[in-house]
Amino acid sequence: MHNLPPHRRLLLLTEGQLGVFTAKTAASLLRYRAADVVAVLDSAAAGTDVRSAVPWAPPVPILADVASAAPLRPDALYVGIAPVGGALPPEMRRHIREALAAGLDIVSGLHEFLADDAELAELAARSGARLFDVRRPPAARVVASTRARETRCRRVLTVGTDCNVGKMVTALELTAAARRAGRAAEFAATGQTGIMIAGRGVCVDACVADFAAGAIETLVLATADADVCFIEGQGSIGHPGFSPVTLALLHGACPDALVLVHQLGRTHYRAPPFTPLPGWRELIRAYEHTAALVHPTRVGGVALNTVGHSDDEARAAAAALAAELGLPVQDPVRDGCDRLLAAACA
Amino acid sequence: MHNLPPHRRLLLLTEGQLGVFTAKTAASLLRYRAADVVAVLDSAAAGTDVRSAVPWAPPVPILADVASAAPLRPDALYVGIAPVGGALPPEMRRHIREALAAGLDIVSGLHEFLADDAELAELAARSGARLFDVRRPPAARVVASTRARETRCRRVLTVGTDCNVGKMVTALELTAAARRAGRAAEFAATGQTGIMIAGRGVCVDACVADFAAGAIETLVLATADADVCFIEGQGSIGHPGFSPVTLALLHGACPDALVLVHQLGRTHYRAPPFTPLPGWRELIRAYEHTAALVHPTRVGGVALNTVGHSDDEARAAAAALAAELGLPVQDPVRDGCDRLLAAACA
Repeated sequence: MHNLPPHRRLLLLTEGQLGVFTAKTAASLLRYRAADVVAVLDSAAAGTDVRSAVPWAPPVPILADVASAAPLRPDALYVGIAPVGGALPPEMRRHIREALAAGLDIVSGLHEFLADDAELAELAARSGARLFDVRRPPAARVVASTRARETRCRRVLTVGTDCNVGKMVTALELTAAARRAGRAAEFAATGQTGIMIAGRGVCVDACVADFAAGAIETLVLATADADVCFIEGQGSIGHPGFSPVTLALLHGACPDALVLVHQLGRTHYRAPPFTPLPGWRELIRAYEHTAALVHPTRVGGVALNTVGHSDDEARAAAAALAAELGLPVQDPVRDGCDRLLAAACA
Repeated sequence: MHNLPPHRRLLLLTEGQLGVFTAKTAASLLRYRAADVVAVLDSAAAGTDVRSAVPWAPPVPILADVASAAPLRPDALYVGIAPVGGALPPEMRRHIREALAAGLDIVSGLHEFLADDAELAELAARSGARLFDVRRPPAARVVASTRARETRCRRVLTVGTDCNVGKMVTALELTAAARRAGRAAEFAATGQTGIMIAGRGVCVDACVADFAAGAIETLVLATADADVCFIEGQGSIGHPGFSPVTLALLHGACPDALVLVHQLGRTHYRAPPFTPLPGWRELIRAYEHTAALVHPTRVGGVALNTVGHSDDEARAAAAALAAELGLPVQDPVRDGCDRLLAAACA
């Protein structure tokens, strides 16, 4: 499990890729760690308004190099992209070298581990800066054995109809809503962006298959002091490639409730095999029946990601789906998630 | 995927651990590669009858060192143990050094990779011997995308109620029965012992979670020329620690039929969490419903491992279970598997 230092003055590196879809990690940090970001580092966009690229961003400057950020006293550089199968883009290397020379910690979710790069490791050793590769799997080889269900904390897992539908956002919004309602709530991060937001977590998809559920069990035990823990889901139990990761979450976390996340209008997997998504009932049945082999759980509601739709379309779709499934349906970003929270904690 | 050379004169190393349960890999090779084994290497048992330790073994000698095996002209040394989390036992090192010096290939299923050991790698380089670590995960990072279901080969997967119930043996016995019936049948190995038997395969439990199903898909595509392929199962979909590996098999292989394997009398998981096994109907439902999200399949029969029971007990138990489930039930080792084969290929 990764535990990041409490960085509070972040430089976000997006070099040439600033945007909601091109630099999703940066865009998420600009939403969920808005108060901690001091600047974006992107020579291609330097001097422009960050909000023209990421509408919800705080009004931070976009700078061309690390030296320009000195007056802002940053304490870390966070790599703001995490492309599938991605290595460190060559044009980002200069910024990382300069940040290390200036003594800034680096936090990266790339597949290519920066700490294993001889030149970067040497620069870090010289300045005392630290390199954190949050996709590195845990060294501990734990086989899950249902220890999660012995905690007194209520465990809620977000699950999906596909990848990239909003499982992390839903878990974060549920955590915030629970805190506003006075509950001691924790967010358990299971992917690189979630870890950068929470400062703690494990990349479950990078774990060896035998120890993936055990890594989740360990993570959930670390949040056992909370009243309720919202666990960031991954993949989908119906996705042929990523379903093992999803099941590691179901059986490692032993959730008491599930919130199913879907993007309105998505009918097919967005990545290979591009086949139709399973039907709602088949999918919910598979989630519940498979989870119940270890710990009984139910889908308590559906978080409907309605991005790109009008308010009217979103409302009509949510109402129709709620009627079809007999479950509360809400878009946590557009509508809040009071009903999903009530259902998950009932 | 691993492809081993066609070794035909094996030395089996069990140093101090020869026995059906203590050296399970060796015991399996003595059953399924009986014609290829020239001797067992075990100084503690040297000179004794191999059948007093492994009843089904061929009458090969037990030798004290590699030098004594020279007249038998071995072409490889196979490490006959694969303990959980196990390193190379120090007392085995001497034999491996001597074998490498003599130019013998080494095949190992240990977690500790012999090819990464500087001394052993140096000895191998000097003699031209090769080191094969069959637990090493594939370098290719393939995400499964249901390509397996596009093959014309019928795919049959063995699944279990727990680990260590007989999924490999069942797949091997089904393969042999299908070949006897005149079919072009292949065995797809997914664990270290299976790979040593088949000469080809992948250790799915050692793969990174995101690529475990993809490794199985690649393996199944490599057997696509057969009429029928029997895929060695791993773990159980109800086991909290190993279920992700099981689901990687279900969604990577896209099986047309499942054969469920159980050990008579086992009521609880034999390793942590030691909790009761799920009920038959709950387990079968979870297997079928989860598989069907990718490719429809049914449990066609139950392979009942009745080791340690009398013929009468075994027969009564099989009849009772067949009546309860409405499925054929057979012990492939005691009774053969004609009815399981018919059900799986119907």
